[in-house]
Amino acid sequence: MKRYRNGEVWDFEHFTAVGASREVILGLDGGTTTTVCVCMPLIPANEPLSDPLPVLARAVAGCSNHNSVGETAARETLEKVMAEVLSESGSNRFAVRAVCLAVSGVNHPTDEERILSWLREIFPKHVKLFVQNDAVAALASGTMGKLHGCVLIAGTGTIAYGFTEDGREARAAGAGPILGDWGSGYGIAAQALTAVVRAHDGRGPPTMLTCGILRSLELSSPDELIGWTYADPSWARIARLVPVVVSCAEAGDQVANQILLDAVQELASSVKAVVQRLSLSGEDGRDSFPLVMVGGVLEANKRWDIGKEVVNCIVNDFPGAHPIRPRVEPAIGAALLAWNFLMRNSQ
Amino acid sequence: MKRYRNGEVWDFEHFTAVGASREVILGLDGGTTTTVCVCMPLIPANEPLSDPLPVLARAVAGCSNHNSVGETAARETLEKVMAEVLSESGSNRFAVRAVCLAVSGVNHPTDEERILSWLREIFPKHVKLFVQNDAVAALASGTMGKLHGCVLIAGTGTIAYGFTEDGREARAAGAGPILGDWGSGYGIAAQALTAVVRAHDGRGPPTMLTCGILRSLELSSPDELIGWTYADPSWARIARLVPVVVSCAEAGDQVANQILLDAVQELASSVKAVVQRLSLSGEDGRDSFPLVMVGGVLEANKRWDIGKEVVNCIVNDFPGAHPIRPRVEPAIGAALLAWNFLMRNSQ
Repeated sequence: MKRYRNGEVWDFEHFTAVGASREVILGLDGGTTTTVCVCMPLIPANEPLSDPLPVLARAVAGCSNHNSVGETAARETLEKVMAEVLSESGSNRFAVRAVCLAVSGVNHPTDEERILSWLREIFPKHVKLFVQNDAVAALASGTMGKLHGCVLIAGTGTIAYGFTEDGREARAAGAGPILGDWGSGYGIAAQALTAVVRAHDGRGPPTMLTCGILRSLELSSPDELIGWTYADPSWARIARLVPVVVSCAEAGDQVANQILLDAVQELASSVKAVVQRLSLSGEDGRDSFPLVMVGGVLEANKRWDIGKEVVNCIVNDFPGAHPIRPRVEPAIGAALLAWNFLMRNSQ
Repeated sequence: MKRYRNGEVWDFEHFTAVGASREVILGLDGGTTTTVCVCMPLIPANEPLSDPLPVLARAVAGCSNHNSVGETAARETLEKVMAEVLSESGSNRFAVRAVCLAVSGVNHPTDEERILSWLREIFPKHVKLFVQNDAVAALASGTMGKLHGCVLIAGTGTIAYGFTEDGREARAAGAGPILGDWGSGYGIAAQALTAVVRAHDGRGPPTMLTCGILRSLELSSPDELIGWTYADPSWARIARLVPVVVSCAEAGDQVANQILLDAVQELASSVKAVVQRLSLSGEDGRDSFPLVMVGGVLEANKRWDIGKEVVNCIVNDFPGAHPIRPRVEPAIGAALLAWNFLMRNSQ
């Protein structure tokens, strides 16, 4: 275990009583826009979870997706936010029993191995370490740490991720905009921008999106959209146009309406692919399973309610799907996962 | 006129006899991948164009799209390649009568103005300067400098650009991949990559593209495609997969076949939008007009011939469309444009 990695990030430990603090677990949700880390006390296995859950500290940082910011920057962000949350809890690395790092960009066993190997350098040997895709923490935030069911995330990006009770897993989408995550906030907004360009050059019908998007971006002509997208192709910046698309669809615009209908189909098809591959709905297709719904696109709660339409579409095929809107954030889901893994391993 | 801009790029002029050289014109085709500049002797207005056209020198450089590499780098590339071609011709800036810079990324009058203003700093006052979108040079390469008809470019990107004989112009697509240039090489390849991911996660049918693309990229699983696209999202790198899509379609794969059919519709719709807006086919829809076809996607000349299918689709609606495969490169088209502009202005 290195004490002086990454600048002076662990210096605070000189001022906390080594071994004196109560045992804690860390849960981290690392997304493409923000990274959240929480520190929770270790709840004994026989005690029920209190409501609200006890959180000793919470720290926030920027992007920790290694695909977006590179390995080194992602690692520094993750280490810093974990140090911060331990420092704020009056704790230190020796008091940690388990860590669950749920980070976007973990798509392959090699991603998991790479992150685990440097986590092992940071923490003492006795600490249990778990690395997951951030979608898994979102699922756990809806199921209070239990890995069962399917989560659908639709924010800037989108992914569906599912687990069976016996530990099999499957995912769909979550491959980024180049690889067709069309139901994501980015996907919806990119389709809307495309519709504006098509209306402008005569390939598509006129649409209220032209006026709505140009006004929202303070541009005067669709020609200027080209420069606007090139200037900063960050997905989150483009995804911010989703409310404009929803407003236009609510106002009766057919083009915007079709874009949202297509997105609903895309999102539902991701969930259906996962449910089918894992047989989550059982042999008769009617078994009950949790369907955790997370992300700005699904939570907008507008009159044109994308989340509601997606659920309708899924329940149509799988009546046992039980929609859950999590009441805790994914970082807490990650901490609950760490706790569950720990309890399971110590049995 | 500054003599010592941009390092020592114009130093060679000390060694050429000022004013002694014959008059020349410069044509430049600046794309997202390469920039080509040619220097041609000024042909008197009453002389017919010789075949092959006389080219004094040709120079090549990298990307000069300001949207891709930034203003400063684009400008340096353009200045350097013009200096190189003049130096190789044994000429200098005083011998230049006209310059036509046809560069990708000129989408708005402000783009044109910005480039013109620094071109004016480089060249003596008497030099006539013209700035166009690079599609215009491609059109001129098929019409030997005449601005009439429609050009369809489909390489890494795609654009349709047309002119009427009385100088009206229109374009369609060419807005980049975020804004829906789905018929481009990038668009075709991105759809194919998406099809592989969808087949893998259960959202789509199995396809030969999986095997074909993984083999071509030397990857072992579709999961690895996510890392591959993130590692370098350059459009040209992705567009290089087009031949794999064509091979799969030729081998009978329905998914690949549908991707190419969709691309054909997209490309044809860009041309149709331009032809309609400019009424290039006249009132009865049967007038003849040149349809210049340029770019790797249209020139592949495989059994599954995208270019041929696009032409069939266009001729169906506009029987007067006269397909032309240019025999000279777009940089020469740009030089012919400069020559035409000059002749027109000096009449």
